[in-house]
Parts: sequence; structure tokens; C-alpha cells
Amino acid sequence: MKQPDNLQSGFSRWKRVSVIVSFLLTFALVGSFYGVQAQERSSDTPNFIIIFTDDQGYGDVGVYGHPTIKTPNLDRMAFEGQKWTNFYVAANVCTPSRAGLLTGRLPIRSGMCSDTRRVLFPDSDGGLPQNEVTIAETLKEQGYATAAIGKWHLGHLPQYLPTNQGFDTYYGIPYSNDMDLVTDKGYMDFWQQPIDSIVTENFNVPLMRDTSIIERPADQTTITKRYTQEAVRFISENKDKPFFIYLAHSLPHIPLFVSNDFKGISKRGLYGDVIEEIDWSVGEIMKTLKAEGVDQNTLVVFTSDNGPWLIFGENGGSAGLLYGGKGTSYEGGVREPAIFWWPGTIEPAVVSKMGSTLDLLPTLTQLAGGKLPEDREYDGYDLTPVLHGQDVTPREEMIYYHGTKIFAARKGDHKLYFYSNNPLGYPEKLEKLEKYKLYNLAIDPSEKEDIIDQHPEMVKEIEAMVAAHEKTVKPVESQLEKVIGQVEATGNK
Amino acid sequence: MKQPDNLQSGFSRWKRVSVIVSFLLTFALVGSFYGVQAQERSSDTPNFIIIFTDDQGYGDVGVYGHPTIKTPNLDRMAFEGQKWTNFYVAANVCTPSRAGLLTGRLPIRSGMCSDTRRVLFPDSDGGLPQNEVTIAETLKEQGYATAAIGKWHLGHLPQYLPTNQGFDTYYGIPYSNDMDLVTDKGYMDFWQQPIDSIVTENFNVPLMRDTSIIERPADQTTITKRYTQEAVRFISENKDKPFFIYLAHSLPHIPLFVSNDFKGISKRGLYGDVIEEIDWSVGEIMKTLKAEGVDQNTLVVFTSDNGPWLIFGENGGSAGLLYGGKGTSYEGGVREPAIFWWPGTIEPAVVSKMGSTLDLLPTLTQLAGGKLPEDREYDGYDLTPVLHGQDVTPREEMIYYHGTKIFAARKGDHKLYFYSNNPLGYPEKLEKLEKYKLYNLAIDPSEKEDIIDQHPEMVKEIEAMVAAHEKTVKPVESQLEKVIGQVEATGNK
Repeated sequence: MKQPDNLQSGFSRWKRVSVIVSFLLTFALVGSFYGVQAQERSSDTPNFIIIFTDDQGYGDVGVYGHPTIKTPNLDRMAFEGQKWTNFYVAANVCTPSRAGLLTGRLPIRSGMCSDTRRVLFPDSDGGLPQNEVTIAETLKEQGYATAAIGKWHLGHLPQYLPTNQGFDTYYGIPYSNDMDLVTDKGYMDFWQQPIDSIVTENFNVPLMRDTSIIERPADQTTITKRYTQEAVRFISENKDKPFFIYLAHSLPHIPLFVSNDFKGISKRGLYGDVIEEIDWSVGEIMKTLKAEGVDQNTLVVFTSDNGPWLIFGENGGSAGLLYGGKGTSYEGGVREPAIFWWPGTIEPAVVSKMGSTLDLLPTLTQLAGGKLPEDREYDGYDLTPVLHGQDVTPREEMIYYHGTKIFAARKGDHKLYFYSNNPLGYPEKLEKLEKYKLYNLAIDPSEKEDIIDQHPEMVKEIEAMVAAHEKTVKPVESQLEKVIGQVEATGNK
Repeated sequence: MKQPDNLQSGFSRWKRVSVIVSFLLTFALVGSFYGVQAQERSSDTPNFIIIFTDDQGYGDVGVYGHPTIKTPNLDRMAFEGQKWTNFYVAANVCTPSRAGLLTGRLPIRSGMCSDTRRVLFPDSDGGLPQNEVTIAETLKEQGYATAAIGKWHLGHLPQYLPTNQGFDTYYGIPYSNDMDLVTDKGYMDFWQQPIDSIVTENFNVPLMRDTSIIERPADQTTITKRYTQEAVRFISENKDKPFFIYLAHSLPHIPLFVSNDFKGISKRGLYGDVIEEIDWSVGEIMKTLKAEGVDQNTLVVFTSDNGPWLIFGENGGSAGLLYGGKGTSYEGGVREPAIFWWPGTIEPAVVSKMGSTLDLLPTLTQLAGGKLPEDREYDGYDLTPVLHGQDVTPREEMIYYHGTKIFAARKGDHKLYFYSNNPLGYPEKLEKLEKYKLYNLAIDPSEKEDIIDQHPEMVKEIEAMVAAHEKTVKPVESQLEKVIGQVEATGNK
């Protein structure tokens, strides 16, 4: 449109100057505002998304070696970010593993482990104690919007729910997807039937929003999709402030369910379908971060809660080249795929240093500018230097609990075993070893060659390390042994 | 420099026009010349490089799941190209595997397998028969410059050397790097000593250029580096014509040697050092292709000759999640990492379709515009459609020989075993199975669950397939059983 002459000619010299000055000022202000904003968002207060899958094994990702499960989004995330190959969870089963991730403390410190009931069940009366400080709580203190989406399994009574543990919102199932089993058979008998005859109605698991049950039984066939929609919406609605999403998929824990879009797409069978839907979900999240322009200031961490449930054969996952699975503290039970993705900040690399879900609370809290409470022991380390590509190792050891017992301990590349167990995890065959076993995991990741006779000095070093650790552990009440009423537990773990 | 006025002013109008026209013509001609050239080079006559390592297992690459061996160049190659996850070699030991790759025919057809001597030894009198047609020969017919670099192991008498099998030049060792052992102990006794007390002089293996020995014993500590230099030089010298390089590294076959630059760099120990030097070599080749401007019209294929030599413990490799190793036709013995890289032509993908080194001759010959001789049976397929991203499966079966016996056969996802063996390969414990075993490799890649009772129809299908195959096999003289003189064989295989 042609500009009217009078407007152009009417400009006085001063008006022109004034317009130019205010234009420049506006530009400078907007620029510096965005500058500050950008700086705050990229280095001071990045967003965080933890994607935590259930019972996915070390070998169940393309880039971790699976031949037939296709995970293009996780593969890309690994190629663009850091693929960690010695990353541990805090325990070899669900509840204590989650407690460790969210608190940065071994579950022995919070009472979230036990030798009798290894996880929480629908009849449990316990949960993550209120005096524990979760990642959501340290981040809330820094002004983060926080969301828990997916499986909780840290207490389903009102006082234990995510919204009482630092999360603004919650959407998901409160315990495992195989609990509240509706059947007249026993748990293991039920699982003898063909997997495709099992339906979502067999499990009377509730789906909750915040503190209310909104669906029961939860429709598990659409659950991965719905978790994803929740996460995508939360990103879009909170992109202008720092946010934290804890997206804990309830799959590929058995029973296995997928949406119709993913049924039969994987050559790996139903288990592969489930992982491929989760991989799709990862892609949706990355796509949303890019579309909303926050990918450069969001750290996404992908990992799993424990190793594959090997007794379920093709319906359980694979630990790849690692020995053992879920329910054991052999490597296959506790070492997980772990990918850290933060475009523009994390340089692509394969990290073979040790890391742990225990490190997420210290790392995220530090990145958010927060501080850890000083009144308690932490088992996590700040991994920030590793994320920034520095060749340092904040974590030089790992203590592997099995329930309340120290099953093994790792220092540097050496892992010393005090106990043995059924490598399949179930039935448990826990035995104190008369002669300990020692492996060099860097050279021998499949734990084939016991080298204890060649390295008596390592045995001493590791025993001393364990003794020092034990001194820091104070007795607390077990939360897992607290039971309400007489309802029979129907989940296997 | 200032242009003399008279030159400028002396131009007639016609001269100017003439200059412009000839400039345009030159431009057009040069353009069309390069156009034709580019077209010829990119679609009609691409260059080929096959990088073939020795005894590297399915799990011995970062992107195939190894936690501590760092292979950034192979990982990048896989991410930019096709990572194949069901790619087979033609046999579970060295000589027949190489014969299969270079001829596109199972070694049973060329006499390059035997049940007594499974490979060629320094006292062997046989080799790949002259009437076999190698990839180098089909490509030479299309005007390719051809080079064999590295280990040959298809006959070391003059008539069997690479320069008599279609290669313009040869630089490498004629058989395995553990042969011509200089020791007063037996072969296995020798290997009881610590790996770092073994020196290159323990093996009197010759290094050859074309048909002459130029160094003996070959200095194996610098051999990966020198192979790489040869390949890089060959690319630079032949970048203006189509070329084919068969780069068959003699490592990580034991004995393990690395150059000083790579000694101790890997957390995986000496075996890892060796792989990381090979990965460096891959990087040098990719870098050279880019620097010479031929990366867009060069197909690079990386794979290994058979599974890891498991009896050597930490000095042998890892088959990852696969069962068995070198010397067996379980998956760990014959399924290999395989990466196809051809920027601009191959779209990045993970390919879980079956492929084989047997397919390289038909594929490369077709891409070069050549034809296969029609007077013989081929066991390879043209993989071009898969390389172009089409969802087709030219290879739907695989016959797994162990020496001259059919150990197993695969059709689609199902593999049927007729024999069993020591999964470590050595000592061989070959036994005909009273009851065959059947596995679904797509769902159960680790071969944990025999499903023969559930799928009698697959047994029949596969038996019929094997019977049809056997009808095409004509008896030929075994090349591996021909021995000269009384020299004792000192290599184990």
C-alpha cells in the first residue's frame, strides 16, 4: 500500500529523531531482555525432562545393540548427545530404583527397600517419607513448573502422591501395571496364557489426575500415547518458564500393551511394538521442544528403572551383552541405557564413565542454581562437568544393594561380589559367597572371568570403601513392610 | 597488475563477441563434461571400498552395543549410512569366509572348505581356483583400478595371489597373523603367556607387495597404519577413475598388535586398542574420500570375516547379545557388524533385513554396470534395491555351512539347526542333532527358546529349501586339504 504523502511530509526533523531514538531504545531493550532471558534460560535455568521407562534392558535400544527393535529417535538422541554406557540405577527393582532417582539417596536411607517385600503393593501403607527431598522439590524452590507423568510407585495413599512430593501436577498410574490383577488363577499361572489373550481389563489399575482416580481400570493400550500428549501439552503451556517433567512410562513392564498404530509394527514382536511406541513418544517430545523453540535450553535424560524381566522370555527385554536381569544386581539388572541430550550444550560423545540415576538430583539442582539440603547424606554426584565435556569422573564407585543387603560394590573398573543370585532374578536364590568374586567391567563387561586371585589389593580397597559407606547409613523404618488391611498382594514384585 | 590500455581499446566488437562465445562454449563443454563425468561416477561407476576386519565380533563396535570400545568413526558411518543387523558371512572361519565374499559363491562350490583343515596354512598347496571369478575381476572388466590391501588367506603360492585374481596391486600378509609361529612350545601352550610378552617376531609372517616378500617377519605393530597409508594413497592416485579397494585388516585376529599411538588408549585393553586403531583407519579413509571430493560416489562397506575368537578371553572379541563365536555357525559366529556408507545415495537407516558378504559381488558388479558370468551358480543377491531404500528383501534365506556340512539354515526369521557344537568353537564338538532346533531370530536374537514343537511347518519348509540348495552343489576338489612337503602347520585354524 502506498504511504500517504501527508504523513511522510508531516514529519518534523525532531519527530523523526524521536521515532528513531525510541525505535533504537525499544530494540535495545527488547534485545537485552531477550539476551538476559536467553542467558537465564540457557545456562542458569534450563528445563529438564527425565524419561524413565520400566524394565527396559541395556540391550533394548538400537544404538545399544538390539538387532530388530527400531529406535530411530533414541538413536538420534544418542548420536546428537551423550550415550552413557556405565550408567546405573539405585536398585534392581522398581520402587527403590525410583526412590533413589528422585531423592539422590540410596533407598536404604529412606526406608524404601526391604528384603521381604521388594516393592510397594496395592495393600501397602508406606511410601516415600515426607522428609525426603525430591528433585521436584529442589527445582520448585528455583521456580520450576513441575509435572509427574506416568508410573509413580512411591506410595499411593494421599500423603505420598506426587502432588505432595513437589510436583504441581500428576497424571498416571500409582503403582505397577501388573497389579490389581483380576483373575481366579495365581499370578504366575495367569502368565502362562498367550500374551495376546491378556487384556487391559485384567488389571484393575487406576489412572489418576493429581489426587483423584479418573479411570479404572486404566486403558493401558492408549497409555503411552496419553502420557505423551500430557508431556507435549505441559511443554507448550510452560515453555516461558523453567519446567521439569518426570515422564515415567509404565511400559515395557508386563503386561505389554500398545495403541493400534503400533500393533505389529516391530519385528521383535509385542515387546518391540511397545518400545517402538515409546521411541515415537521420545520423537514427539524432541519435536515439540524444537517447535516451541526450547530445545537449546532443555536437558532431556532417557533411562530405565532396572534390567529386563528375563523370566518372561520374549515378553521381557534383553540386557544385551550384560549378565543377569531385573531382580539381580549383576550388571544386566542395574546397568541401563542412558542418553543425555541438550543441543548446543552437550557435545556428542559416548561416555563410558560411571553415572547413576542417583546423580540426577545433584546435577539438575546445580544446573537450576539450587542447593542440596545439608542435613543428610547424598549418594549422588554433580555430573555437570561430564555434561560439559570435561574428562573428569565425579563418580568413582557404586554400591549395589539387593533389598537391604550390599550384594556387590564397584570401584573404578572393578566390581566385587559378596553375594550370588539366580541370574534370572526369580525365584530369588540369594547366597552369601564363601569366596567373593571380582571382575574388571571395562575389559570384561559380560563378567566372564573372575580375577579375584590376581587382585587381592582391589578386594581390600573395595571392602574398605563399603565399610566407610556403611558407617554413613542410619537405621530407618522400612516403608515397604507397612501393610494395610488383609488384601492379598497380587503383583509379583 | 594494471591492464595495458592498448589491449583493452584494441578489442574489436567481433573479437569481444568471439571471446564471449568461446568462453560460453568452453563453459558449456566443461560443464557437460563434468556433468557426464559426475553422472558416470555417481550412478554408473561408483568407487567401492570393502573394509573387512578379522575376528571382530558383532558386539565389538560402539553402535552395536560395546560399552567401552570407542568407535566414533564407525558410529558416524552407521548413523550417516545403513547399519545392517542381520548380515552374514559365508563361513565361520577365515579362508572360506573370504572365498565367499570375493566370489559371491558359498565356499562349498569353490572347494575352499574342508572338515579336516578348516583354513589354509603355510604348508598348503591349494588356493582359490583360477576359474573362480572375483569381485576384482568383474570390476576390472568395467575398467576399475583394483587394489587388495591386508590379509589374503586364499592361497599364497604365486598362482593364487591377489595379482592373479583381478587385483592390480597387492600389499599385505598372505595368511593369518598367528601363523609361522616361532616357538619351542605347542600353539596353545604358547598362548598361555601374558599377551604383552608376545612380540611381532614370534610370527615369521611375510609382508608382500604384489608377488614379492618385502619384509619378514612383518612388523605387525605398524601394520594397520601401513595398510591405511596404502589405501589412502590408492584413493588419491586413482580418484579420477573408478576404483575398488579390498582392505582386509589382519587384526583384531590374535596376536594383537597396535602402533605406539594407540597403545593403552582403550578402556577395553589391548583388544580395544586394536579396534580403536582400526576405527581411526576408517576415519582416515572417510576423510580422504571427502578431501579428494569422491565421498559422494564411493560406496564403503565395513564388516568382519567371522565372529569373535572366544577361547582367547579378553584378547578375543564379543558377539554382544548373540550366542556362540568364531568356529561355530551359531549367530555369534557368522553374524557381523555391517555398515554401508554412500553419502547422497544411501539414506540413513537401520536395516534388519538379511544380507551377506555373498551379496557384495552381485551388488558391486551391478552398480558398476557389469554382469555376472552365466556358467555358474551364485549364492549372492543384488542388494541395490535395499541400498536405495526400497522395502524389499532379495535375500530370504541363508545356508550356514560348517566345513562341508550344513550346520543350520534360515528362512525368513526362522533358523533351523541340524547340528550342535561347542559354542566357544574350540575344541570342536560337532554333533548331528537327534532332534533339530528352531529359533525365531527376529524375536529371539539370543537363541534362548527352541520353538520346533510349535512350528513343524517351518521345519518342512526349511528342509525343502536345503534339499533344493543341495541339488545345485556339484562336487569339487578340496583346496584346503592339499599340502606341500612336511612342514608342520603352526596356526590353530
